[in-house]
Amino acid sequence: MQDFALDDRLANDSVSVAVTGLCDVRLMKDRRWPWLVLIPRRPGISEIFELTPLDQVLLTFETNKVGAALKTVTGATKINIGALGNIVRQLHVHVIARFEGDANWPGPIWGYGKAEPYADADMNSFIAKLRDTLSQ
Amino acid sequence: MQDFALDDRLANDSVSVAVTGLCDVRLMKDRRWPWLVLIPRRPGISEIFELTPLDQVLLTFETNKVGAALKTVTGATKINIGALGNIVRQLHVHVIARFEGDANWPGPIWGYGKAEPYADADMNSFIAKLRDTLSQ
Repeated sequence: MQDFALDDRLANDSVSVAVTGLCDVRLMKDRRWPWLVLIPRRPGISEIFELTPLDQVLLTFETNKVGAALKTVTGATKINIGALGNIVRQLHVHVIARFEGDANWPGPIWGYGKAEPYADADMNSFIAKLRDTLSQ
Repeated sequence: MQDFALDDRLANDSVSVAVTGLCDVRLMKDRRWPWLVLIPRRPGISEIFELTPLDQVLLTFETNKVGAALKTVTGATKINIGALGNIVRQLHVHVIARFEGDANWPGPIWGYGKAEPYADADMNSFIAKLRDTLSQ
């Protein structure tokens, strides 16, 4: 059986926040939007419907837990959820906090402009808040 | 209890393909991409995590059934799935068939350019194929 290995580009563009039953939950290194990604730890999967039904349910519950936590922590106007994978084919689900007037609002965030890095202290305190809310 | 009513903009921009256990499944009137939308028939919901756990599971299975059918019918390179709702707040999940070189590939489709209507015959035959595949 093939082992799971996180895609290099995802690994590079994000940092670990939590490991859930199915997924690695990671924060994108882009302070323009509070932006998390869930990557199911299953090798060779690029579409959600390729997961087993049980894994589909786990992914749904974990995505929704992360989405609700992100809304609580940020007070977002709207949570955006998406699984595109046109560039990186390893299955990953984006969960993004959106606010009226944020970069490219009300359009999508993918492919828009260039990532703006967090200051380390800001990133660390945001991750701490997320972990705290996710563990409740 | 509030009744469910389909958002006017969604109703206007799409035509009915099927009614599943939870959702209205509709085809967007835009031939640039094979593009379906699932709308859970629940009033007052704008985030997936506001649905009951059972409805979340139904939505997942129905979305994945639609995604797999769309891949079968179109031979798409990649299925894109998204729930944004920055403009239309009634919860709706997009399922889009993407191909290398299609409009805005590999970027997202939302907010890109203007819808191009189908010829009636093309739309009807596409809907017939989708219904046939969804019923298998």
